[in-house]
Amino acid sequence: MGRLDHVGVAVRDASSTAATLSRTLGLRIELDEVLENIGVRLVYMVGADEDGQCPVQLVQPLRDGPVLSFLDERGEGPHHLCFTSLGLEDALVAVNDNEATIFAGGRGRRACFLTQQLSGMRVELVEPVPSSPGGHP
Amino acid sequence: MGRLDHVGVAVRDASSTAATLSRTLGLRIELDEVLENIGVRLVYMVGADEDGQCPVQLVQPLRDGPVLSFLDERGEGPHHLCFTSLGLEDALVAVNDNEATIFAGGRGRRACFLTQQLSGMRVELVEPVPSSPGGHP
Repeated sequence: MGRLDHVGVAVRDASSTAATLSRTLGLRIELDEVLENIGVRLVYMVGADEDGQCPVQLVQPLRDGPVLSFLDERGEGPHHLCFTSLGLEDALVAVNDNEATIFAGGRGRRACFLTQQLSGMRVELVEPVPSSPGGHP
Repeated sequence: MGRLDHVGVAVRDASSTAATLSRTLGLRIELDEVLENIGVRLVYMVGADEDGQCPVQLVQPLRDGPVLSFLDERGEGPHHLCFTSLGLEDALVAVNDNEATIFAGGRGRRACFLTQQLSGMRVELVEPVPSSPGGHP
């Protein structure tokens, strides 16, 4: 297992939140992408002068799903913490999680959410480098 | 303004959560400190092989206060995002926040919470280096 990769924040309108974070905190957009497979738009925000070591990931749902349910129940705010993991299958075995689903996540990298929250944290694991295009599930 | 400095997670028992994060994600404790001035214990957790670029900060309240209220209302989970800021006074003027209180925060560094949440995020600002001992408010 590795380090904190990003923090996911559930928002209704990523453009609006990105503008606020830019104006208020000086953050800039590193990447703005749509993942059709899971129905979300992801906007990665980093400090103006950094290399995006640990971005804030704005997660805007594009259709019904767990992020929209989260927003309806709890409102906008921090949604998950994501940590790098060299091999997702091995990591899931190590934590005895046989229900998590591996999917093609942001920035072309394989990812999964642990089935169990840890002290109220939704935990995502992500491989540190993009998988080959044919390697997506 | 700068980059994401850490993510604060409100927990009831930092020792218990630290043990879980160590066992499950392989994180290690970088620092474990008590801030008597604000009544919290702070445990910083980082990846086993990293330098603590962006730690997870476990925040355990030691008495009544906003973190205990958060736990009572929402339960354990992500509490705030903290960004580095070179000068807190100037930063607060820039965001037109004249109610925020600057305090001696974790790791000997001056910090403050913005009065207004941003898209449901509690935002802390922290100076990137420790202040001199006499410089604490």
